Amino acid sequence: MTAQSLAADEALAWLALLRAPGLGAATIRTLVARHGSACNAVAHARRDASIPGAARDAVCAPDRETQAADRHWLGQPGHHLIPFASEDYPALLRDIPAAPAALFVAGDPTHLWSAQIAIVGSRNATAGGLANARAFARAFAQSGNVVTSGMAEGIDGAAHAAALDAGGTTIAVVGTGTDVIYPRQHGDLAARIRAHGALVSEFPPGTVGKPENFPRRNRIIAGLSLGTLVIEAGLNSGSLITARLAAEQGREVFALPGSIHSPLARGCHKLIRDGAMLVETADEVLGQLRGIGARLAEHLRGRLGDRVAGAEAASPAPEVQGRDPEYSRLLTLLEHAPVSLDELADRSRLPVAALSSMLLVLELDGVVSAASGGRYVLARPAENSGLPLRPGRGSA
Amino acid sequence: MTAQSLAADEALAWLALLRAPGLGAATIRTLVARHGSACNAVAHARRDASIPGAARDAVCAPDRETQAADRHWLGQPGHHLIPFASEDYPALLRDIPAAPAALFVAGDPTHLWSAQIAIVGSRNATAGGLANARAFARAFAQSGNVVTSGMAEGIDGAAHAAALDAGGTTIAVVGTGTDVIYPRQHGDLAARIRAHGALVSEFPPGTVGKPENFPRRNRIIAGLSLGTLVIEAGLNSGSLITARLAAEQGREVFALPGSIHSPLARGCHKLIRDGAMLVETADEVLGQLRGIGARLAEHLRGRLGDRVAGAEAASPAPEVQGRDPEYSRLLTLLEHAPVSLDELADRSRLPVAALSSMLLVLELDGVVSAASGGRYVLARPAENSGLPLRPGRGSA
Repeated sequence: MTAQSLAADEALAWLALLRAPGLGAATIRTLVARHGSACNAVAHARRDASIPGAARDAVCAPDRETQAADRHWLGQPGHHLIPFASEDYPALLRDIPAAPAALFVAGDPTHLWSAQIAIVGSRNATAGGLANARAFARAFAQSGNVVTSGMAEGIDGAAHAAALDAGGTTIAVVGTGTDVIYPRQHGDLAARIRAHGALVSEFPPGTVGKPENFPRRNRIIAGLSLGTLVIEAGLNSGSLITARLAAEQGREVFALPGSIHSPLARGCHKLIRDGAMLVETADEVLGQLRGIGARLAEHLRGRLGDRVAGAEAASPAPEVQGRDPEYSRLLTLLEHAPVSLDELADRSRLPVAALSSMLLVLELDGVVSAASGGRYVLARPAENSGLPLRPGRGSA
Repeated sequence: MTAQSLAADEALAWLALLRAPGLGAATIRTLVARHGSACNAVAHARRDASIPGAARDAVCAPDRETQAADRHWLGQPGHHLIPFASEDYPALLRDIPAAPAALFVAGDPTHLWSAQIAIVGSRNATAGGLANARAFARAFAQSGNVVTSGMAEGIDGAAHAAALDAGGTTIAVVGTGTDVIYPRQHGDLAARIRAHGALVSEFPPGTVGKPENFPRRNRIIAGLSLGTLVIEAGLNSGSLITARLAAEQGREVFALPGSIHSPLARGCHKLIRDGAMLVETADEVLGQLRGIGARLAEHLRGRLGDRVAGAEAASPAPEVQGRDPEYSRLLTLLEHAPVSLDELADRSRLPVAALSSMLLVLELDGVVSAASGGRYVLARPAENSGLPLRPGRGSA
């Protein structure tokens, strides 16, 4: 457990808000911001007219049994509740419309800050589609990217498994509580993902799969990722929702073409006609995301500068708007051999969440490369490997 | 033989110019225009300093044996030489850069004025590719379009044969003389095309296949057609040249997607990435070409108005710029049952070439539909069949 943990009472208060019927993400975020914490929001809920009646009752008199279960879930190793305002909340997801008020994570939440590529597709994939999902996931993982998907049968499961088999990292965003295994046959896969990546959900523990949860889950998959690759999809596939959301969020959408006689190519063809990039190889995806990485790096650097500055003073200190001096100090701690995040945290005395954010910016900037096993290495100017998101070399 | 024939002497003079070494299409067109006819251009060639020396010698002292062979070719039924300025020269081809100075046709040259869709692709097509070529060619032919291709092995040959098998019309543009069968195994196919369509070439009779002829042939395929569909093509396929030329000529390019593991899908995928329309069905092609037909109809109507007017008076008569009165008279001669072009020529007393042009305009305008066997029928406003290029109904 490397990320910053929420105090138990604050986490329970968050759960009370998140479980309250009819309280939307935007309302919860506003409430917590106004009261300064979830604990305060809950304490003042009885007198808060902005909370609908039923939600107020639920927040003020939470179900004891549910609360005990939540306490139990929060106490397990590797379980995290990450509120919207937390430094651990991934920046790319924060940018989307209707971002979740909080995320539940089972596994290592620092992976949420790694460069992610979503692979999604049909639950009833063909053998060829599954082989393609495995090949692209392997290539993305081997180039240091996290493979993000929805842990569904078919393409999703194949992508997760192949990323893990390649020694990489994978994130599964689920439409249930992270403790509810769905589909059932993915119990072993879920355990592997939890151990070598993260299971992520916006739904509290114990939430069972409901049809309306899955499109909501899809917006998180798209929102966490720099780009979304659709491998095989019918015209009514949920993968098309994920792809549409990714496009609406300004992320890149990639699709594999297929035979005009294959019903599972139709969704991909529709996406290509609608502007998705037709890809034949993983390198095409990685090449395209390098350009996007460059733009995101600018954006993130500005945001992180604001945030670091905001934590220290009311007005941002100009010297942290760019990369100096924290970034320069971090660069002196990196080496040309991969260094683990924990080692860097020790050396830098920086909180792991802040460190992850800074490493992502440096990675998107092409100065640092992600290596296997969540390690980081200085990017060599002369090198031109398949490592991800390296927009330009001269900027260090 | 329905089109207007060139006088034998004028045709021979054209052949002398076309066979002269180093005389380009633009030079020949300028020469003939300046002298008023090919005969006059040849008669004055000795004193014309704009003709290079070798070409001048060839024009003034043509090889007797070649001339006898040319005379023989011209004397055969169904053989036509169509100069650039002729009314039979197809309007769409006239629009392209470096349009041929003349076309040699074996078959019925009035088909050159029909709405054409090009189908091209690899010579080493897969069984699936050949089946797709046949299915699209059949659908295009059944909807009244002429299928145009290059009579090569593979996709080209399959498209021609399927159009003929469906009772439709097909045009083969060849990179040899129309009397040279290439590839050799397409002798029977060439005979069928000649009987139920046309063999077309810019190369004089007897010209054998040279590698440099085929890209030139491809620009004619693209130039005759409203759009070009590529079925299967490797990255080095000549079909990509045809598609590029079609795009440069402002025509629509369509490509069929395929497996990312198929080398013959790569060329199609490249085209799609470069802006070609990904299509799964013939209806998508026909639907897209309806819009293009509407724009072309405007353009052609203007040109034809100019031409009809120019033939009658020095300044265009305003009343023929639109559709009246010649078009209105023609519409009264059409019926809701298909009428052949010859029958319409008899009824209207219009030259067949002018009639073909006017029918194409009306067809592109959605007022007239092409039926099988080169017949024409009034389009019914309520009808919505698969007939081609029907942009709107209210304009009649």
